[in-house]
Amino acid sequence: MALIVQKYGGSSVADAEKIKNVARRVAQHASGNQLVVVVSAMGKTTDGLLTLAHQVSPAPDPREMDMMLATGEQVTIALLAMALHALGLKARSFTGPQVGMRTDTAHTKARITRINAERVQQALDAGEIAVVAGFQGLSEQDEITTLGRGGSDLTAVALAAALKADVCEIYTDVEGVFTADPNIVPDARKLPRITYDEMLEMASLGAKVLQSRSVEFAKKYGVPVHVRSTFKPDPGTLVTKEEHDMEEVLVTGVTHDRSQAKVSILRVPDRPGIAAQVFGAIAEKNIVVDMIVQNISRDGYTDMSFTLPRGDHTRAVAVLEDVARTVRAQGIVHDQRVAKVSIVGVGMRSHSGVAARMFATLAREGINIQMISTSEIAVSCVIEDKYAELAVRALHEAFELGREREAAV
Amino acid sequence: MALIVQKYGGSSVADAEKIKNVARRVAQHASGNQLVVVVSAMGKTTDGLLTLAHQVSPAPDPREMDMMLATGEQVTIALLAMALHALGLKARSFTGPQVGMRTDTAHTKARITRINAERVQQALDAGEIAVVAGFQGLSEQDEITTLGRGGSDLTAVALAAALKADVCEIYTDVEGVFTADPNIVPDARKLPRITYDEMLEMASLGAKVLQSRSVEFAKKYGVPVHVRSTFKPDPGTLVTKEEHDMEEVLVTGVTHDRSQAKVSILRVPDRPGIAAQVFGAIAEKNIVVDMIVQNISRDGYTDMSFTLPRGDHTRAVAVLEDVARTVRAQGIVHDQRVAKVSIVGVGMRSHSGVAARMFATLAREGINIQMISTSEIAVSCVIEDKYAELAVRALHEAFELGREREAAV
Repeated sequence: MALIVQKYGGSSVADAEKIKNVARRVAQHASGNQLVVVVSAMGKTTDGLLTLAHQVSPAPDPREMDMMLATGEQVTIALLAMALHALGLKARSFTGPQVGMRTDTAHTKARITRINAERVQQALDAGEIAVVAGFQGLSEQDEITTLGRGGSDLTAVALAAALKADVCEIYTDVEGVFTADPNIVPDARKLPRITYDEMLEMASLGAKVLQSRSVEFAKKYGVPVHVRSTFKPDPGTLVTKEEHDMEEVLVTGVTHDRSQAKVSILRVPDRPGIAAQVFGAIAEKNIVVDMIVQNISRDGYTDMSFTLPRGDHTRAVAVLEDVARTVRAQGIVHDQRVAKVSIVGVGMRSHSGVAARMFATLAREGINIQMISTSEIAVSCVIEDKYAELAVRALHEAFELGREREAAV
Repeated sequence: MALIVQKYGGSSVADAEKIKNVARRVAQHASGNQLVVVVSAMGKTTDGLLTLAHQVSPAPDPREMDMMLATGEQVTIALLAMALHALGLKARSFTGPQVGMRTDTAHTKARITRINAERVQQALDAGEIAVVAGFQGLSEQDEITTLGRGGSDLTAVALAAALKADVCEIYTDVEGVFTADPNIVPDARKLPRITYDEMLEMASLGAKVLQSRSVEFAKKYGVPVHVRSTFKPDPGTLVTKEEHDMEEVLVTGVTHDRSQAKVSILRVPDRPGIAAQVFGAIAEKNIVVDMIVQNISRDGYTDMSFTLPRGDHTRAVAVLEDVARTVRAQGIVHDQRVAKVSIVGVGMRSHSGVAARMFATLAREGINIQMISTSEIAVSCVIEDKYAELAVRALHEAFELGREREAAV
């Protein structure tokens, strides 16, 4: 008998009919398994609540936001439990607090501190399907908290870890993790397996299937995560630890992120403390910087560049113009529309020449590279936004990702 | 400094604009007082949730119903707390479980067993307005429960008792308790005061301002209840314990209930156990009987009559036809449309002739009385439904209720 944690997102439970579909899907796995089903709020529920909050207050209190938002999942769990009952199954719903999901007190973006899953375990032992509200928990002050973006995935993975589940299945509106965005690359291939580290790079580089937080949690506790489609029965992508035969694969996928802007601060005096001063000023405005590049200095001066979400671009430029004056830099240049294109693969660790092949491929297409950054298992290039799709297709082709894995060695 | 519990119903918090109005109303009382504000779900929220539940299941589980329904009030408390913050007030919301409202396990109609109001008291001591979800609690098994119809009023009264509040104010869409329904009797007068016992009779006899359960609770714990309009600043009606000067008043009000049906079982053998057999069969079908009348027997036989909600009429007739055969009664007669008209007043206790005056008044209007029932402070008559309005107007006139109280002595 396997213990399976399943998670269904908001679009999978958007109305009564879809909830009944999920119930039927759950029923298919019910016989012979212990099941925990984590669900999100129905479709646009959260948006509707946020609108109400902003109608009554210009700056709603985070504690009260959590109090309000947590109701979304609470409705879904009750409805799904009812729908399971209607199919003749034993099921019981649990809120985040009831499921023993304890968090810190950072309302609207709380972090899980521990899980006391006793009550869920009792339900499973009694032969019940446990239906659990994702996204929410209880702080040490007994306040209702929410986990922020991707919180329901995190609930599922964390519960799977606490219950030592055999697998955590994330049901979503895509069929799995692909070698590139199928909307851009027609012969993009669904990956049957991917390592946690590759998935982390993919997640942070713009593949929207799973949030980084959930993958980090899964990696830390060794939870196998299976990304599958809610609407199709196909096997999806298993995110798991690295196995020996994966070493052979050079590049697993090509990702891209077209939501970025680029800012450079030019001829900064190259002395200790300058980077801290620049990025301290940015952080103070709660702007999250993505890629940072600084090259060696010449004549005691250097240039610093970084990318950031496009929406923060104007604020960042304003902050940096001040900073540039203070540190006596020459000035700043910026571009509100850039794209980041990356190749990801654990095989890069033991192979050289991957980056060179990437740069050559982009050159062949006449695409100028504005910034380069590398990690152990990824190479990222910032390019002009208009070349994004061309770059992804060219790289997918160059690394032969459309063919079977064996062919790409 | 007074401690005031206020309760606002669903129509008072139906949208963001109305919630802001309630916040302004609360703000008027905030200075110099400790305030607990109990709220219901927004307008039609509960109906919407019930529809969803019936879309996923023909017979939703009561535990899951409570899980779902409790979200309605949880949204309102968060929004009201935000709206109070926006006015610069300190406020904190509490769910039923957080407020220490403990109940039995009778889901969808739980009874309050005890209240541990420590957390609310702490908020009040910290100078915060406590915004509390009505209608909900936590069972001894740590399950979310709801209190059934009129549950939010009950939450308010029970909290007022637990906190030893100076007054419990029930804000509603009517201005108070009237001597009769102002829609029927144009010169009906708003009563400035009414005793718990009178209010109980009024509540159970069809005045829809307050549910009997809340009045019983208020009487038991001596909580003064002030019924007021959400939308008008006028003083409403204070429901309180009997005071000496009230003795002078003979009749306080005329109530009517047009939602009743009548069933009689004829020539029942008059022997011990028969009434139990008849009403046992009715109770088994969860039909709640209102007025029961049985006269003395003749020749060893008697007739039993009772009234019940019109919606249960058909089921009751079916049950009783069986029972009539079993107990060898002659048969049953029934009427799906009757009205009950009553006069209420603590002064009746010490005055005779009140009932006679009522009967004479109805006779003068040519209204036949089908059943009569009396309590210590009320006389009720069942009449043909079409005479209901005429009867109420005639009785209101006969007992001079439209004038000032002094004149009615």
